[in-house]
Amino acid sequence: MAEVKLLGAWGSPFSRRVEMALKLKGVEYEYIEEDLANKSPLLLKSNPIHKKVPVLLHNGKTIVESLVILEYIDEAWKTDPILPEDPYDKAMARFWAKFLDDMCMPAIWQIMWSKENQREKAIKEAIQHLKTLENELKDKRFFGGEKIGLVDIVANFIGFWLGAIQEASGMELVNKERFPVLCRWIDEYVNCSIVKENLPPRDELIAFLQTRFSASSWKY
Amino acid sequence: MAEVKLLGAWGSPFSRRVEMALKLKGVEYEYIEEDLANKSPLLLKSNPIHKKVPVLLHNGKTIVESLVILEYIDEAWKTDPILPEDPYDKAMARFWAKFLDDMCMPAIWQIMWSKENQREKAIKEAIQHLKTLENELKDKRFFGGEKIGLVDIVANFIGFWLGAIQEASGMELVNKERFPVLCRWIDEYVNCSIVKENLPPRDELIAFLQTRFSASSWKY
Repeated sequence: MAEVKLLGAWGSPFSRRVEMALKLKGVEYEYIEEDLANKSPLLLKSNPIHKKVPVLLHNGKTIVESLVILEYIDEAWKTDPILPEDPYDKAMARFWAKFLDDMCMPAIWQIMWSKENQREKAIKEAIQHLKTLENELKDKRFFGGEKIGLVDIVANFIGFWLGAIQEASGMELVNKERFPVLCRWIDEYVNCSIVKENLPPRDELIAFLQTRFSASSWKY
Repeated sequence: MAEVKLLGAWGSPFSRRVEMALKLKGVEYEYIEEDLANKSPLLLKSNPIHKKVPVLLHNGKTIVESLVILEYIDEAWKTDPILPEDPYDKAMARFWAKFLDDMCMPAIWQIMWSKENQREKAIKEAIQHLKTLENELKDKRFFGGEKIGLVDIVANFIGFWLGAIQEASGMELVNKERFPVLCRWIDEYVNCSIVKENLPPRDELIAFLQTRFSASSWKY
């Protein structure tokens, strides 16, 4: 049995976060693709509370929840740290990771699933959160500074998935006029070799998303 | 200016978490009570994104979000650690802290604010999460093992606030028949001297909660 196994799903930004951290650190692992419509006994046994991917199995121990897994990986394999050493800088990275998960991602999904009369409000909220990110990123190459760190890994949803969502739905939330700094970061991010080799095929993701969104395309 | 300042609110379990960690470590701090109906310029400047307590100010640096603050405190002051040293044990503590914040607390609040026809569903969900906690706690004195750790601090909502909510609302979710292990933990927890000296006055909290809940008392 391999020392490290990852249960994931190809289109999940949460699974891809974990893969990126493992690859950044050069940790060898066995990847097991889960069919989320028909979850395996191993997934249900490993994550009985949430029944979700990603699940990391390391020497018979089970770790779930992508943010928890990322911190675990950073502590279990010390090379190429993804979190800063200084307690305050580390707190800031955790703050932004939490901001992305608790505020940005729900706000963006909210736009897609909200009723017509709620959509304007959802868009305003998402723009406000993205402006906050834009402001945080100005004067920096990556959220992690000169190199990719925890926040960049967690922001993969903005870096890649959001573009696919925009193309699949016709929604235009992020563009160069509205978010020049974020767009510059997105360009640089998806062109990093370590990121590029760890993203799902764009066309397949768009096709997958299109089956989930309503047929009515709309512009903002 | 004191080295450490805390902006908090007397009835907030999130503020009290931070106070408990500071007290456990013997860190001296200046406490500043915030009027949440009329937030101070210092709070709005310190936490412009969420505009919430708690806010920790340490040597001119600002840290917000209670879970982020707790980890910061554990790293900035090494004595009497609240997180385990081992990466896997640490991941487990983070998992349970997240479970409390993301699953248990929202489910319990949901009962209080849900419409009559949604309440049964909300109660079932809360009971399921509390059963998960009960199961995690069996065979252990505290979530942290033999002494209070991060998860116990985060679980203060279950340890103290829930009892006050039950008394203020008439709801009976947690009792000795349904949750013997959790009730044993609650008894032990609120009687720890460090916890006891760091809880709001029970009568005042109940009076405060009563003004928030509807007048109709109900039993489950």
